[in-house]
Amino acid sequence: MDSFKPIGFVENDFKEIQHNPDVFRDTVSRIRILEEFVEGVYRIDDFSRLYVIFVFDRAEGYRLKIHPRGDESKPLRGVFATRSPYRPNPIGLAVVRLEAVQGNILIVRDLDAIDGSPVLDIKPCEDDVTY
Amino acid sequence: MDSFKPIGFVENDFKEIQHNPDVFRDTVSRIRILEEFVEGVYRIDDFSRLYVIFVFDRAEGYRLKIHPRGDESKPLRGVFATRSPYRPNPIGLAVVRLEAVQGNILIVRDLDAIDGSPVLDIKPCEDDVTY
Repeated sequence: MDSFKPIGFVENDFKEIQHNPDVFRDTVSRIRILEEFVEGVYRIDDFSRLYVIFVFDRAEGYRLKIHPRGDESKPLRGVFATRSPYRPNPIGLAVVRLEAVQGNILIVRDLDAIDGSPVLDIKPCEDDVTY
Repeated sequence: MDSFKPIGFVENDFKEIQHNPDVFRDTVSRIRILEEFVEGVYRIDDFSRLYVIFVFDRAEGYRLKIHPRGDESKPLRGVFATRSPYRPNPIGLAVVRLEAVQGNILIVRDLDAIDGSPVLDIKPCEDDVTY
């Protein structure tokens, strides 16, 4: 399998893994795109919603069946039926609202990644885009 | 950056890269989960829609600005504002409908990945899941 490299990094006020993704709702983050990839966001501001694929780089290990959000009152689920950061491949996916583009910085809302998370990819979210 | 490993592979009738993702609409694919990860899909059939994160393993190289779908009549865009398979990290993302689970096989609809594509992750799609 290929090794992937960051195209940028998340900047926000969340310094540790959050078990309740609701805390990210409406919060603003910055995605700082590395200079070598900045041409890749040309005209991205045509879109209001984006997918952001990132790495849960502080999540170590995984179990295949878990109690969602670490809450033992919730019945076990397979990890692929949850959004837990502790996954065989620690990849996160967020649907964000794009607020602004300032050079190599994307200002986004709703990104449930913590500060410093490496970003692997960004895609337009719209299902039926014509472009 | 970490190296990722497949958790399974796509099986369908598409043997080559497709430039028009519309051809995948309504098509049925199978995702064969590797035995070592099969517990990870426990109770995934509670969800009707899933995100599938996979690798464009036959896409070589990339350019940061492209004509969408290779159509030179369309104006240039940054690759992160397109769904092109030719990306700095060749990661694909599909929203699929889960039709059935048969042991380690997920039967899904709308997966725009070609036959043999390595699958890295699967997540429930619903935005406001309570589980």
